[in-house]
Amino acid sequence: MSYQLAIHGGAGTILRSQMNADIEKKYHTALKLALEKGKQCLKSGGSALLAVELAVSVMEDSPLFNAGKGSVFSAAGTHEMEASIMCGKSLSAGAVAEVSGVKNPVQLAAKVLSNSEFVYMVGRGAEQFAKEKGLVFENAEYFATDFRKLQLKEAQEEGRVQLDHSKSKERKFGTVGAVALDLSGNLAAATSTGGLTNKQYGRLGDSSMIGVGNYANNTTCAISCTGYGEYFIRAVVAHDVSAMMEYGGKSLDEACRIVVQEKLRTMGGEGGVIAIDSVGNICLEFNSEGMYRGFVNENELKTLIYK
Amino acid sequence: MSYQLAIHGGAGTILRSQMNADIEKKYHTALKLALEKGKQCLKSGGSALLAVELAVSVMEDSPLFNAGKGSVFSAAGTHEMEASIMCGKSLSAGAVAEVSGVKNPVQLAAKVLSNSEFVYMVGRGAEQFAKEKGLVFENAEYFATDFRKLQLKEAQEEGRVQLDHSKSKERKFGTVGAVALDLSGNLAAATSTGGLTNKQYGRLGDSSMIGVGNYANNTTCAISCTGYGEYFIRAVVAHDVSAMMEYGGKSLDEACRIVVQEKLRTMGGEGGVIAIDSVGNICLEFNSEGMYRGFVNENELKTLIYK
Repeated sequence: MSYQLAIHGGAGTILRSQMNADIEKKYHTALKLALEKGKQCLKSGGSALLAVELAVSVMEDSPLFNAGKGSVFSAAGTHEMEASIMCGKSLSAGAVAEVSGVKNPVQLAAKVLSNSEFVYMVGRGAEQFAKEKGLVFENAEYFATDFRKLQLKEAQEEGRVQLDHSKSKERKFGTVGAVALDLSGNLAAATSTGGLTNKQYGRLGDSSMIGVGNYANNTTCAISCTGYGEYFIRAVVAHDVSAMMEYGGKSLDEACRIVVQEKLRTMGGEGGVIAIDSVGNICLEFNSEGMYRGFVNENELKTLIYK
Repeated sequence: MSYQLAIHGGAGTILRSQMNADIEKKYHTALKLALEKGKQCLKSGGSALLAVELAVSVMEDSPLFNAGKGSVFSAAGTHEMEASIMCGKSLSAGAVAEVSGVKNPVQLAAKVLSNSEFVYMVGRGAEQFAKEKGLVFENAEYFATDFRKLQLKEAQEEGRVQLDHSKSKERKFGTVGAVALDLSGNLAAATSTGGLTNKQYGRLGDSSMIGVGNYANNTTCAISCTGYGEYFIRAVVAHDVSAMMEYGGKSLDEACRIVVQEKLRTMGGEGGVIAIDSVGNICLEFNSEGMYRGFVNENELKTLIYK
């Protein structure tokens, strides 16, 4: 048995025309850093659960991705983040949503998994739990980046609640995620996001929903999603991939393809998934122009952006 | 094609020794009222989506059930309610959580389904949406009942966060829900709860999670859950029943039995589900001592409490 790790940094319309060699290099470097952090853990016999937490934490710490530092702004000018994590061996899980100030939401989700009788916590209550457990908090300035401020300003001027819907502009579904298989044959998945620019009404997406944006089960696969959250919720994407394998006898590739390229497309849902099955197959499937992504194992480390 | 409606008012250890003919009659009467309200809608050609909203609203208005009026108290002495609704034809859905003051959370969930580009809203943001859409609000006294105050007092004295875990006392997982098949052949499901007595940390259960505590899909079934939420989340119960039918070729009865009596039992998850499939079969399955439940169709109206 060998280890495997795959990550994503969000999917969407990533236009080559709006990128340049310098920006692309930054993304590749950040993705590589996350993969190496996770690999270090897995190679030395660390658990898949810890590896996905570590890899997602690296992406949360990077201002390039919409999670942790660099999260988008809500309509109120705040950062309302969500994250989840699941262990494929025990089916234990932790999830948080609408949390502000927590440096690494995925670490809070991991703390909910390991140190709470609950699975899902939101808002000020979740922050209270974070404080009691000694998680690191940062002030609003830490999370803020000029690019996200500009996105909020543009969205508010245009009265948009969602990220850009016009074809002319970059449209990205900013989420980060990781899935891993460890040397003991256990699977795990973690997902984290800052949500949608200019979002209102305490909107939650799929990223903190176990079975929807994140799922792991040693029987089938570990999976993390990124995309238009509302469609992913209605399609219960992560569990659907797993169930298609468990009950329908589909391979990981077939299940991911059917869900992302057929079911989601039919509904109008844009985005993608990363997944690893119990024997180490990896699938990075998306129906958008691009998806920041990568994978690493004993033999290979690869990072990609476009199709 | 005929119509069908099934409802539940929570599952758990409902001890005959702590009931009497008078209390039992009250529950049967309340369940019957909800069934008749839903039946009126379905019989006259109304949609399954409206029927489940109406039936759940009746139970929310009754102080007997842990939803709407009569919701349990959180540790902060507040009512933090959650609800969800899904249409099996369009797969559109609406869900709210951590809302206070909204008289009928299921009606707010229905408004999210029909009047929002979002699916899931929580906390003050969800309440803001409710205000803008003109939903009825009530003050704290409306929701409060002496029985729930006593439950909070007892729970706090014993340092319990969950509802009673000791075998000596009544242990109920208070949730209400409805599933329906209308004359057009469409399915829908709705679920609502006040959560857990003395809950902290902004804990969410499964009731507001699409695919977990509530799901509807014309391809398979409509389903509403009640039970120990954390286990239902980790088992992605509602979608698992649907997937077992869709990909595994199981009947509604088989799928519900496997999930409730085998999978949940193995994990230690207590509770039950109510479900209707696309041809009108009904299943009311639970692994606890009792479940307040009932169903109605052209020929029959029945309400039940114990096994």
